[in-house]
Amino acid sequence: QGTRDHPPAHVALRDRLLAAVVACFKRHGAAAIDTPVLELRETLMGKYGEDTKLIYELQDQGGELLALRYDLTVPFARYLAMNKITNMKRYHVAKVYRRDNPATTRGRYREFYQCDFDIAGQFDPMIPDAECLKIVHEILSDLQLGDFLIKVNDRRILNGVFAVCGIPESKFITTCATVDKLDKMPWEEVRSEMVGEKGLSPETADHIGEYVQLHGGLDLIERLLQDPKLSQNKLAKEGLGDMKLLFEYLTLFGITGKISFDLSLARGLDYYTGVIFEAVLLQQENDHVEEPVSVGSVAGGGRYDGLVGMFDPKGRKVPCVGVSIGIERIFSILEQRVKASGEKVRTAETQVLVATPQKHLLAERLKLISKLWDAGIKAEMLYKKDPKLLKQLQYCEDMGIPLAAIVGEQELTDGVIKLRDVATREEVRM
Amino acid sequence: QGTRDHPPAHVALRDRLLAAVVACFKRHGAAAIDTPVLELRETLMGKYGEDTKLIYELQDQGGELLALRYDLTVPFARYLAMNKITNMKRYHVAKVYRRDNPATTRGRYREFYQCDFDIAGQFDPMIPDAECLKIVHEILSDLQLGDFLIKVNDRRILNGVFAVCGIPESKFITTCATVDKLDKMPWEEVRSEMVGEKGLSPETADHIGEYVQLHGGLDLIERLLQDPKLSQNKLAKEGLGDMKLLFEYLTLFGITGKISFDLSLARGLDYYTGVIFEAVLLQQENDHVEEPVSVGSVAGGGRYDGLVGMFDPKGRKVPCVGVSIGIERIFSILEQRVKASGEKVRTAETQVLVATPQKHLLAERLKLISKLWDAGIKAEMLYKKDPKLLKQLQYCEDMGIPLAAIVGEQELTDGVIKLRDVATREEVRM
Repeated sequence: QGTRDHPPAHVALRDRLLAAVVACFKRHGAAAIDTPVLELRETLMGKYGEDTKLIYELQDQGGELLALRYDLTVPFARYLAMNKITNMKRYHVAKVYRRDNPATTRGRYREFYQCDFDIAGQFDPMIPDAECLKIVHEILSDLQLGDFLIKVNDRRILNGVFAVCGIPESKFITTCATVDKLDKMPWEEVRSEMVGEKGLSPETADHIGEYVQLHGGLDLIERLLQDPKLSQNKLAKEGLGDMKLLFEYLTLFGITGKISFDLSLARGLDYYTGVIFEAVLLQQENDHVEEPVSVGSVAGGGRYDGLVGMFDPKGRKVPCVGVSIGIERIFSILEQRVKASGEKVRTAETQVLVATPQKHLLAERLKLISKLWDAGIKAEMLYKKDPKLLKQLQYCEDMGIPLAAIVGEQELTDGVIKLRDVATREEVRM
Repeated sequence: QGTRDHPPAHVALRDRLLAAVVACFKRHGAAAIDTPVLELRETLMGKYGEDTKLIYELQDQGGELLALRYDLTVPFARYLAMNKITNMKRYHVAKVYRRDNPATTRGRYREFYQCDFDIAGQFDPMIPDAECLKIVHEILSDLQLGDFLIKVNDRRILNGVFAVCGIPESKFITTCATVDKLDKMPWEEVRSEMVGEKGLSPETADHIGEYVQLHGGLDLIERLLQDPKLSQNKLAKEGLGDMKLLFEYLTLFGITGKISFDLSLARGLDYYTGVIFEAVLLQQENDHVEEPVSVGSVAGGGRYDGLVGMFDPKGRKVPCVGVSIGIERIFSILEQRVKASGEKVRTAETQVLVATPQKHLLAERLKLISKLWDAGIKAEMLYKKDPKLLKQLQYCEDMGIPLAAIVGEQELTDGVIKLRDVATREEVRM
């Protein structure tokens, strides 16, 4: 349940998509690592807040207690700590596992690919963070998914807001989770969850509401830096200062047109400590797809400066910032688009079919195809001793094979082969 | 235990290796599929004989009982049956899981890649089987792993041998498993296991020994076809007839020089029904590697005509033959070779580092690198506001980045950049 087999047309399309994402990661100088699908259970515990219950655990069959990885970020942090690496730019494309309620029409599965790019190391503020946003911008532009928006916020600003609204620190994380729902429900519902379930006073909730409904750009950052309360809060001030720097860098990259500083963005995971961001596709006005797919966020990430330290025996921290591209959701969109366009995705790359027009020529086909393979040419033949020529040409048409190399009795006598262009039926002897 | 993280140098080398294997699979017209790492537990049960105990099972957390796939063959058969596909040439490169005793120095892990190519469908005998052997021959030749030998046998011939030696059919599989050990222990030990553990009479064991120690080529096939006892056994006769045909096709492919018909080859898995084969590397006379790695078999496969039917509600069979390339073992050899050669594998592909020779030029670096990225050029910069030029050039040397694009105050005034060849120190203004 919640997993699927990928037939050849899927894999061909997905490989195209992954190639575009990986090309971007490599353009930014990242190296690839790979980690096991299995992690020690204790590695994953206490990293995902409420979502810990979604972790797949393995049966205790003797030996270590294991679980399937939930994301690629925690394994990366473990990898850095285990190998005492304090400085690394890496990407990782691999499957992760979540015992979530699958919503397969929206591209949400229990087994799915993640494509992560992360920068670990002690650097000057916001330079790597800006690069992560540039990467999201490049990938979403390259893939021509239509208009998109990248929402940016900072956990320190959110925590500052909570503090000046009078929420005790112990309730920051749970309030964060409620604020995070603002992309799916209106403020009124979020407010009533705050008051009803989380036990905030109506005044506190309204106070939070004034902040978290704000979004804008540099102007908003400047305004909040002047906010009499927020500007007194150390965390918020740090966060806003960095946000301003980030926007300066994004301006130099020329991408602020698609970036929104959005105080409602909270993101669920516990481990974020600074900048957080999430990219969403905007409803397309001129939609070619019959049933537009609601896909939610297509990329997300942020800064997690404390995670590596959790795996180091001495708690040594390695600051990290990274981005995860939601390729399953992007895949759903591309798949619908291919379907709507009627484009036929070729699933094999065969260049030539080796064919014979008469019987008793299997040996000649085997000899010729062997030469083609050895010459690096993608070639097939039918696995029949004496197939009809029509069947062989039909196979070319079905599979989109452009050429047929035909050896018949005449060709054998003349020491040639006949190369046929399947579409035009043109033939040359060679 | 038995798994490992792959650092960038590993992944870079492995990607090279996988690319060569996949190129060969595509050259033979295969399409890729992908299946979940998770399978229903019942799908895997009863397919692997004694090795069933090595399957990783997932904890029962409600819902279905799951396990991690043990190989890619059983998922492929399930895929064919579920989708009622009777005809397919596919490859699949993915990780599989076995709770085996890891022997990591020999490249044996609990999580490892398999690279499988299989042909499913009802075809004329031995044509797809011959192609599988051609593929093994191509891949091992392409990778230049040194001399190798592909052993070939047929389960029907083995069963015929057992029958004429008077072994009851119920003991075929267990006798098969004992015969399979002939590649690791001498005949005397195998014989004593047959007599001691498996309860065969010494005469029967000796009789089997006469057969299973034979190996050769077409001549041996002809001799056995004349064998007064074997030629009377229906299964053996069929198997030997097909083996003769196979050798004819392999002769046309020009690869019999590296193929040995070897009656000691049995292969462990239950599901094989016809031709079986296994490729081994031969000890190299002129060994460049300091400590030669003992790697065992590097490819194997065979025909399994009954497996798909086990997943079809009506038991409809789809004949299949396939090959699995043992890339982990091949990887171990290549890794040792790279180490011995002192070759430095680049782990990132960065073409140019954007650098500045003076302070207060971060904005210029950000503007330039953004243009390079947008032009598809692989570019990096140091994440420091004011790094020293020497540090920037040192980074190029450490990472093997060939070029540095330098923007200084003079270049800004002149409206140029200075492109420096890191190795030769040559500079051009452009």
